[in-house]
Amino acid sequence: MISFESDYNNGAHEKVLQRLIDTNATRTITYGGDEFCESAREKIKLACQTPEANVFFLAGGTQTNATVIDSMLHTYEGVIAVSSAHINTHEAGAVEFTEHKIINIREHEYGKMAAEDLEKYLFDFMHDGNNAHCAYPGMVYITFPSEYGTLYTAAELDSIYRICQHYHLPLYVDGARLGYALASPACDFDLPFLAHHCDVFYIGGTKVGALCGEAVVFTHNNAHPHFFSIQKQHGALLAKGRVLGVQFDALFTDNLYFDIAQNAITTAMQMRQIFLDKGYGLYVESPTNQQFPVMHNSEVERLEADILFTRWAQTDDEHTVCRFVTSWATTQQDIDTLRNIVG
Amino acid sequence: MISFESDYNNGAHEKVLQRLIDTNATRTITYGGDEFCESAREKIKLACQTPEANVFFLAGGTQTNATVIDSMLHTYEGVIAVSSAHINTHEAGAVEFTEHKIINIREHEYGKMAAEDLEKYLFDFMHDGNNAHCAYPGMVYITFPSEYGTLYTAAELDSIYRICQHYHLPLYVDGARLGYALASPACDFDLPFLAHHCDVFYIGGTKVGALCGEAVVFTHNNAHPHFFSIQKQHGALLAKGRVLGVQFDALFTDNLYFDIAQNAITTAMQMRQIFLDKGYGLYVESPTNQQFPVMHNSEVERLEADILFTRWAQTDDEHTVCRFVTSWATTQQDIDTLRNIVG
Amino acid sequence: MISFESDYNNGAHEKVLQRLIDTNATRTITYGGDEFCESAREKIKLACQTPEANVFFLAGGTQTNATVIDSMLHTYEGVIAVSSAHINTHEAGAVEFTEHKIINIREHEYGKMAAEDLEKYLFDFMHDGNNAHCAYPGMVYITFPSEYGTLYTAAELDSIYRICQHYHLPLYVDGARLGYALASPACDFDLPFLAHHCDVFYIGGTKVGALCGEAVVFTHNNAHPHFFSIQKQHGALLAKGRVLGVQFDALFTDNLYFDIAQNAITTAMQMRQIFLDKGYGLYVESPTNQQFPVMHNSEVERLEADILFTRWAQTDDEHTVCRFVTSWATTQQDIDTLRNIVG
Amino acid sequence: MISFESDYNNGAHEKVLQRLIDTNATRTITYGGDEFCESAREKIKLACQTPEANVFFLAGGTQTNATVIDSMLHTYEGVIAVSSAHINTHEAGAVEFTEHKIINIREHEYGKMAAEDLEKYLFDFMHDGNNAHCAYPGMVYITFPSEYGTLYTAAELDSIYRICQHYHLPLYVDGARLGYALASPACDFDLPFLAHHCDVFYIGGTKVGALCGEAVVFTHNNAHPHFFSIQKQHGALLAKGRVLGVQFDALFTDNLYFDIAQNAITTAMQMRQIFLDKGYGLYVESPTNQQFPVMHNSEVERLEADILFTRWAQTDDEHTVCRFVTSWATTQQDIDTLRNIVG
Repeated sequence: MISFESDYNNGAHEKVLQRLIDTNATRTITYGGDEFCESAREKIKLACQTPEANVFFLAGGTQTNATVIDSMLHTYEGVIAVSSAHINTHEAGAVEFTEHKIINIREHEYGKMAAEDLEKYLFDFMHDGNNAHCAYPGMVYITFPSEYGTLYTAAELDSIYRICQHYHLPLYVDGARLGYALASPACDFDLPFLAHHCDVFYIGGTKVGALCGEAVVFTHNNAHPHFFSIQKQHGALLAKGRVLGVQFDALFTDNLYFDIAQNAITTAMQMRQIFLDKGYGLYVESPTNQQFPVMHNSEVERLEADILFTRWAQTDDEHTVCRFVTSWATTQQDIDTLRNIVG
Repeated sequence: MISFESDYNNGAHEKVLQRLIDTNATRTITYGGDEFCESAREKIKLACQTPEANVFFLAGGTQTNATVIDSMLHTYEGVIAVSSAHINTHEAGAVEFTEHKIINIREHEYGKMAAEDLEKYLFDFMHDGNNAHCAYPGMVYITFPSEYGTLYTAAELDSIYRICQHYHLPLYVDGARLGYALASPACDFDLPFLAHHCDVFYIGGTKVGALCGEAVVFTHNNAHPHFFSIQKQHGALLAKGRVLGVQFDALFTDNLYFDIAQNAITTAMQMRQIFLDKGYGLYVESPTNQQFPVMHNSEVERLEADILFTRWAQTDDEHTVCRFVTSWATTQQDIDTLRNIVG
Repeated sequence: MISFESDYNNGAHEKVLQRLIDTNATRTITYGGDEFCESAREKIKLACQTPEANVFFLAGGTQTNATVIDSMLHTYEGVIAVSSAHINTHEAGAVEFTEHKIINIREHEYGKMAAEDLEKYLFDFMHDGNNAHCAYPGMVYITFPSEYGTLYTAAELDSIYRICQHYHLPLYVDGARLGYALASPACDFDLPFLAHHCDVFYIGGTKVGALCGEAVVFTHNNAHPHFFSIQKQHGALLAKGRVLGVQFDALFTDNLYFDIAQNAITTAMQMRQIFLDKGYGLYVESPTNQQFPVMHNSEVERLEADILFTRWAQTDDEHTVCRFVTSWATTQQDIDTLRNIVG
Repeated sequence: MISFESDYNNGAHEKVLQRLIDTNATRTITYGGDEFCESAREKIKLACQTPEANVFFLAGGTQTNATVIDSMLHTYEGVIAVSSAHINTHEAGAVEFTEHKIINIREHEYGKMAAEDLEKYLFDFMHDGNNAHCAYPGMVYITFPSEYGTLYTAAELDSIYRICQHYHLPLYVDGARLGYALASPACDFDLPFLAHHCDVFYIGGTKVGALCGEAVVFTHNNAHPHFFSIQKQHGALLAKGRVLGVQFDALFTDNLYFDIAQNAITTAMQMRQIFLDKGYGLYVESPTNQQFPVMHNSEVERLEADILFTRWAQTDDEHTVCRFVTSWATTQQDIDTLRNIVG
C-alpha cells in the first residue's frame, strides 16, 4: 500500500545511513562533544552565514520546542503563538508542562500569524494597566512552513521580526519541515535570510532525511549559557550525541539537505495537479509538501482501501479535508499509483 | 473619592470582624482542624443541602483555582474553559504553572460557555484518531457570575453538567462573586441547585464580606483524599486556618452571606439606571454587581477626577468600556454621589 | 487544656487586631498598593536600616519560601539547604513543585549549616568536570532560628554570607520565627545586622503576633522586577493586600514585634528550667521558644492527658523527644500550670 | 588513544546496525505503532516471561526515568531513592522538573538501598502524625547495577520488593546497564526473576549495543493507560519510533543482548586483575563493567596521557578514585594496551 500519511514513515536517506555505518566504530567523546557534532555545527553555521551562532542537536520536534522555549522564558513569561500552532495543538501540553502559558493570538490565515495582530496584542498588553496579573509575553513562536504547509514571505517575516525586536522579544521559528519550505518555488528567501530574521530556529531532520534529530540554531550567540544542562533536565540530551551529529554532518555535506527536500516539492506539485484534475477543491493553497484536498466521504473511504493518508477535518456532513504528505523519499511510482487510483 | 473600582477595596463586614474579635483568644488546633472551621463546614453543607460534601478553606481565588484544578487533573490532562475565563486571562498563568493546559473553547456570549460548543469539542476530540497527541480534557471550568457579570440559567447549567457527566468530566464553578449571582433577580436557581449541578465550586469570601478566604465545596465527597497535602504543596494552607473558618462561620450564620450580597445588586441596579438615564450604552447586559457603560473618552477623563473605576477596553478611538463595581459595602451615599457627578 | 503545641494556635496580638478594626472601613487600592502596606514597608526598611530594600507581604511560610526561591532561581538551578531544612521536610514538596531541586548538604549541628560544608560543596561542584549534568546551585537557604530552635552566631552568619558572595549565590534566611531568634539573649546580633548579611529574608508574622502574613525583605533592591506577577502566578497575592499591610504596620509600630517576642523567650526559659528540675534531658540546647525534653513514654502519655504538645522523634523504644513551644501569647499561668503538672 | 571513559563512546553493535540498514526502506506506521516495535515488544515479553507486560521504547535514560516516574506518581507524591541514586545526582534535576520530590534515604552500601532502611523510613512515615505536611512516598527507585557497579542479590531484591508490596508502592528498577548486571557471575538471578520482582524496569540499550534507546517494561499490565500521551508531553516520543523498535528487535534476537554484555564483564575482570597486580586498591568491589581503582595523583596524570577514563572522587590530597568502564565493544587489544601502560 502506498503511504502519504506522513513525511516520517521510513528510515534515513542512504547517504545519512552510510555515514552512520562509516563512523560506527569510531570512539568519541559523549553528549555531543564529539568531532561529528563539531563538524556538523560548523557546516550549519556556514550554511546559515551566522558564524556567531550556537548549534545544538536534539532528538525530536516536541522535545526541541519545549526545551528551547523553556530555556528562553522566565518563570512568569509565556510564549505567543497562533491558536493552530503545533505547540498549542499536537504536543500534548509539552510547553505547559514546563510551566509556561501559550498566549494565543488570532490565526490570520491558515497557520500564519499576522504582524499586525502581533503588534496590536503587544501594544495593548503594554498599555494595559492590569497586565501584571497576566502571563507576560516572553517570546514569539511561528512555524515555517506552517501546519497547513503555508509560507511566510520575506516581507512578512521581516515585519514580524521587527516587531519582536521593538518589544525585545526573541522570535523562534519551528522548522520541523524547514527543508520543504526553502525548496518551494513560493519561498522568496533562503536559509541565511531566515537565520538573520529570527533569534532561534530549528532545522528539522526527522522529516527531512534523518532517522531522528533536529538542529537548533541560536543565531547570534544567544543560547542560554546553561543550555546543555537544560537539555539534560528536559531528558533531551542523548548520551551518544554523535548519532545526531553524524546525520546532520551528512545532511549538510554537498547540499544534501536542500537537494533531497526538492523531491518532496516536485512530487507534491504533481499530487496537487492530480487532485485539481479530478475536480477536488483544495482546503488551502499549500506550496509545500502537504496537500489538503476536500473530498466526498465516499471517495475518502474508497481511497483508504489503497492509500494511507489522514482525515484532517470535516467541512460538512458529507465532505472531509484530507492531508496527503510527500517527502524526500516519495517516488515517481508513488505518484503514478496515486494518479491511477484517484483518477 | 468614591470608589467603584472593585468589590474588595475595604475590610470585612462588621459581623465577620466581630467574630474574629470574639474568638481571638481561643486556642485551637491548627491548619483548619479547629472548631470554627468545623462549624463553618457544617453550616455550608447545610446551606448547600449536600451532607456528603467536603469543604476546604483557602485564602484567595487564584490560589483556589490552581489548587482545585491541579488536584483533579492527571498530569496529561488540561482544563476546558472559554477564552475569557479568569484562569485564562488574569491569573498570571497560575494553572499552567501547575503544568496543566487550559483548553480554550469559543466564548459563546459574554463570559459564558455554550453547552453545544462544549459538546461539539468533546465529541470531536473523542472521535479524533490523533487525540493521544493532544492535552486530554480532564475537567470543565466556568465562572458564575462570569467576568462580565452574566449568569447561566438553571437550564444552561443543567445542560453543561449533563454533558460533563456524559463524558465523565468534573464540572468546576468558580464562584469568586457567587453571592452576587445568587442575589440577582435574574438568577433562576439557588445555592442547593448549584451544588447539585456541579462537582466542585467555591463560595467567594474575599469579595463578599470577608478579609480574605474562599470556601471550596466538593459536592459529593469527591475531594482528592490528599487534598490537604496538595494545599500545603501549593502554599495554600494557612497555619491559622481558623482565620478563614471564623469568617465563613459568621458569613453562614443567619443568612449573612446572602443578605449582604443583596446590597450589591440593589446599588448596581441603581447605578445601571443612572448610566441609562445619562444615555450611555451598556457593553453587556449584566444583572449582577459589575456594570459596563460605554463612554466617550472625554467623559471618562472627567469622571476619573472624582471616581475610582476601571477602563476595561477600547471600543473605538473615541470610546471606552468602563467597569463600575458595587459590593456589600456600597452605600446609598456612594450612589447618590455617582448620580450627581455623572448626571 | 493548656497548649504548647505551636506558636500559631490563637489569634492576633490585641494591638494588631485593633489596627484591623480601626482601618476596616477605609477604602484602598488593592493587591498591596495601599497606604497601609506602604507604611509597613517604610517601617520595616527603617527597622532593617536598608533604605534600598524591596518589601512584599505574603500570607504564609511555605508559600513565601516557594515564591521567593522560584523567583530567584533559573530553571536549571536548585537551592542548597541542610537535610533538616523546613523546605526539605515539612512543606510537602512545595519547592520541587516549582520544578527546582533542593540540594542537600550535611546538617552540621541541629538544624544548622556549617560554612565549611557549604564551601566544600561549592568548591567541589565548581571543580567537577561533570557538573553540567547536575542541578546547578542557585541560592542558599538557611533558617533562623532553625527547626530545632538553634541560632547562628554573627560570625557564623558572616562566614556563610561571605561564601555566598564569593560564589555569587544569594543567601535566603527563612525567618518564620525571626522575632524569637532576635529576642533571645543568645543572639549576638540585631535585625540590621541580619539584613546586611543576606540577600533576602522574611519576617514571620503568623507565629509572632499576626493572624497571618510574612514580610519578605529583598535587602538591596534585588527583588525580581516581576515579583508581583510571580506572586500572582503562585497564588500568593491577596486581593485585599491591606490585611497584611495593616498587621505589619502595627507590628512595626513602637517596637511591638520585638517586645511581644520577648515573652516567648522568657516563658521558654522558665519551661526549660522546669524540665531540667524534673531531671529530663534536653535533646538540643535551644535558646529560643522551642524546647525539646526527652521523656519516658509513660511520662509522655501522662502529660498528654492535660497538655497539648508534640511527639517529635523516638530516641529509643522507651523514650521520646517532645516539642514544647511558647509564643508571644504564652501566659505566666500557662507556665505555672505546666510546672504543677510536670513537677 | 584507548578509551575506558564510558560504555557509550561508539556506535551500535554490527547486528543492530545491520538491522537498521535492512529495514531502512520499509514504510511503517509512526510513533511506535510499527511492526518492528511490535516484534521487539513480543520478544522482550517472552524474554521476561511476562506475557502481560506493557513495553515502551524511549530514547535515553534520564528521559526514561523522568517519564516513568512522573507517570506513576500523583502530584503530591515523591520517589524514594538513596542519596547516590542517578536520578538524585546526575540527571540535572529532571525528576524535580516534573514537580516531584526525590525522598532520600541512607545509602546502605555503595549505591545500594537496604531493605531495612526502606522499611524503617516507611514505618516511621506512616506513623508520623504530621506526615500530611510531607511529600508522600509514591514509589521506590533503585539502580541495577548501581552507579558503583554493585549488585543486589536475589534475596535483597526480594526483600525490597516485599516491602514495596506491603506499602502498596511500585518498585522501579533503573537498568541503564542491566545487561552488565545480568552477565556478571556475581548475579544470582536472571531477567525473568527481575521482571517478577518489580513493577517496572528498563532495559538499557544505549550502553548495551544500541545507538540509543531504552525499553521500559511495566511488568504486569500496569502502565498508565495514557502513557503514550505522557511520553509525548515529556518530549519522549520519537516520530520514527521504529528506530528504537528495530534496534531492540535485533538485541532480543538470538540472545544478542546477553551475549554482547558478556564481553564487558570478561574484559572488566581482566582490567580488575591488572589494577590488583599493580597494587592499586579498589574503592569498591564491583562485579560488573565499572572498576574503581584508587591511584596516586601522579599515576593518574601519567595514565591520562594515553588513556581516557574518569576522575571520580578525591580520597585525600594525593589520591584519586578513578573510573574505568568496559562495554560490549571493548577489545582484547584495549585490555592488552591497558596492561602495557599501567604495568
